Amino acid sequence: MTNHEQFLSRSALTMRESAIRQMGAVLAQASDMVSFAPGYPAEDVFPWKAFAEIASDTLTGSDGSVLQYGPTRGFKPLGDVSLEIMKTRGIESRTDQVVITTGSQQGLDLIGRVLLDPGDVALMELPSYTGAITAFRNTGASLVGIRQEPDGVDLDHLDTTVRKLRSEGRRIKFLYLVPNFQNPSGLLIGLEKRARLLEWAERQDVLIVEDDPYRDLYFPDVTREEETRPIAAIDTSRVIYLSSFSKTLAPGFRVGWLSAPAPVAAKLELAKQAGDLCTGGLDQRVVYEAYRRGLLARHLPVLRAYYQKKRDTMSRALDARLTGKLGWVPPRGGFFLWAELTGHLTSDRLLSVARRRGVIFVTGAAFFVDGTGDRFLRLCFSSASPERIEEGVKRLAEAVEEASHAPADSPVSSI
Amino acid sequence: MTNHEQFLSRSALTMRESAIRQMGAVLAQASDMVSFAPGYPAEDVFPWKAFAEIASDTLTGSDGSVLQYGPTRGFKPLGDVSLEIMKTRGIESRTDQVVITTGSQQGLDLIGRVLLDPGDVALMELPSYTGAITAFRNTGASLVGIRQEPDGVDLDHLDTTVRKLRSEGRRIKFLYLVPNFQNPSGLLIGLEKRARLLEWAERQDVLIVEDDPYRDLYFPDVTREEETRPIAAIDTSRVIYLSSFSKTLAPGFRVGWLSAPAPVAAKLELAKQAGDLCTGGLDQRVVYEAYRRGLLARHLPVLRAYYQKKRDTMSRALDARLTGKLGWVPPRGGFFLWAELTGHLTSDRLLSVARRRGVIFVTGAAFFVDGTGDRFLRLCFSSASPERIEEGVKRLAEAVEEASHAPADSPVSSI
Repeated sequence: MTNHEQFLSRSALTMRESAIRQMGAVLAQASDMVSFAPGYPAEDVFPWKAFAEIASDTLTGSDGSVLQYGPTRGFKPLGDVSLEIMKTRGIESRTDQVVITTGSQQGLDLIGRVLLDPGDVALMELPSYTGAITAFRNTGASLVGIRQEPDGVDLDHLDTTVRKLRSEGRRIKFLYLVPNFQNPSGLLIGLEKRARLLEWAERQDVLIVEDDPYRDLYFPDVTREEETRPIAAIDTSRVIYLSSFSKTLAPGFRVGWLSAPAPVAAKLELAKQAGDLCTGGLDQRVVYEAYRRGLLARHLPVLRAYYQKKRDTMSRALDARLTGKLGWVPPRGGFFLWAELTGHLTSDRLLSVARRRGVIFVTGAAFFVDGTGDRFLRLCFSSASPERIEEGVKRLAEAVEEASHAPADSPVSSI
Repeated sequence: MTNHEQFLSRSALTMRESAIRQMGAVLAQASDMVSFAPGYPAEDVFPWKAFAEIASDTLTGSDGSVLQYGPTRGFKPLGDVSLEIMKTRGIESRTDQVVITTGSQQGLDLIGRVLLDPGDVALMELPSYTGAITAFRNTGASLVGIRQEPDGVDLDHLDTTVRKLRSEGRRIKFLYLVPNFQNPSGLLIGLEKRARLLEWAERQDVLIVEDDPYRDLYFPDVTREEETRPIAAIDTSRVIYLSSFSKTLAPGFRVGWLSAPAPVAAKLELAKQAGDLCTGGLDQRVVYEAYRRGLLARHLPVLRAYYQKKRDTMSRALDARLTGKLGWVPPRGGFFLWAELTGHLTSDRLLSVARRRGVIFVTGAAFFVDGTGDRFLRLCFSSASPERIEEGVKRLAEAVEEASHAPADSPVSSI
């Protein structure tokens, strides 16, 4: 019998499964489960017919490069599209700063590898996106949490933390932020705070990693487009900006992009070369054509109205059934409603009951690098239909009721 | 002015560009260049019409999961297909051993991350595939070269090297092999030697990483299918086996797979989760349907005849123009003819002249982890048309003539 453990790297020994992907697996096996867990966009709103047309126009063979190995930085016209999109967001980037990535997740992974050594520090919001946490943690870096206020990162806590880390001789590489409709909290960082965060980064000589997948999905009833202006729009010289077509077109294409200071982009390209040579050729062409033909521009207002309505459905259902048991702020964009249990019940304990009652969500602790957050739930409203959202909230309310009254020492699922 | 160098990881500081990808960039900029450089499959033989049909059948919207986030291990029916394909190659693998990867390059990258710590040793054939060299080197591991004999790895050199490394206290994780029509040498490891390599790995308690992208492209005039039987067909308990659809369907889909001992596969899945969440959904469906509809099975004999004919064209052209100046063994499968300059001329020096004369190839040194190999050329015959192969060899012969007579101190290009 071969002992395979002995062959594993230190990084492999500490790798953990994402709580979100775990719930994805639960979902795949269940039949009548209502899922508020993985942040999936709704499939019924994908422009299927237009995608099929583009695919068949693209696969004629008249351009052989569609299915050939392509440049590591990506299909050049799509890189130009990313520059145009960034321009509409106020960001002045250049060709030598851009890398097309196999989803934004690859961008996060490349950033971890190119910037972080074991023992380095990455500063993360409390809470923060699990995919970034996992990618950065795999490098052996330390992730240190910074508290959030209603308008974003607590600057005082940021200063205290940095002073303490530096006095211990720690090397801080960057602050990771999701300023627009954060996964998981839904939080929108205020414009003034964005400017102050960049000033802070300059003063402290660290980078900002700005992850922006939800920017186009602001809800017009409560959010003006100007409020989503990225930090990179102020200056790109110390910001690595990431965005994606996964939430606006479809995640199955695995197409995102990043813009970094040119010397960093050059290293990210080399890391990607070893990582997968290039992003899928057909996928990049379909996304490019969806932009060029105006499909994306026509689709965005539809998506905003569509997800805003789902936000309303979930918000109203929670109001009706869980007022007093759960606290939350209705999100101003994105896919997530972030809720806090008001009593002593933990979200882990609640999930074990909820799962049995046919509804799942992601527990808060997964998003906190400091091990706190066990009273929080991330409720994703993007994927289920309005009827299923109602049904799911009903089941959730029943689960809260049951879990609050069950004996505290009853067996708890290990998920 | 921000100093970005200070933010880079140790790994990023040592990352180097692949010589093959570099030639790809040269190619993209040149107009009348004959390329024997990147190992691109020929685009004119891709089954475009069938791909377009499959794509349009797949993008109806009746199955929403096609464009949704998918399981990290891959689209389950495609995993089953990989098991069936491995079975035809004599390999008994199981579902819990398989991971679909974003091309085989991702598989190599994941293996590096999951198995190698800085200072660990990976044993590599001299020469070996540059994509593997780069992926493994990025982990900070030491790559140590083992000489090849006509039937593959020199077992005596392997033993001497391992004894020496162990006496120095080095930790050896695996031996990386491309047994079928190796990139770059085209070498086919003999069946008896394959068995002896596995026995060696068991005796020494190390793993074998068996990379097998060219297996289906054996040339029937000189190779029997049985001669391509993978090492993993003997036993999978210490072999990580990789293969791909990039050479048989198209690389633009970025779909490969690996089979590893289950505990290692579980870690590779976690590394992939952080790396890109999942491989493209549409890509996986197209590849799956190409198999299910019998397209792949019908296509393989066509490809074998097609590439065998190109091998003949290059072989004959070299015979006619470069006998005595270059030594080579006609390959028995795959994409590459591996040639050695018989005089004092190095392939680097030759390339600088050849490039000016309109033909490029990859220089040998890129494939040797010990820094030798500067008399070798990798000539890829898969991509150019027969007429262009003739023209390219003519230019190459002229370049050899010119470079052999030019003063040795003339300026040499830095590529």
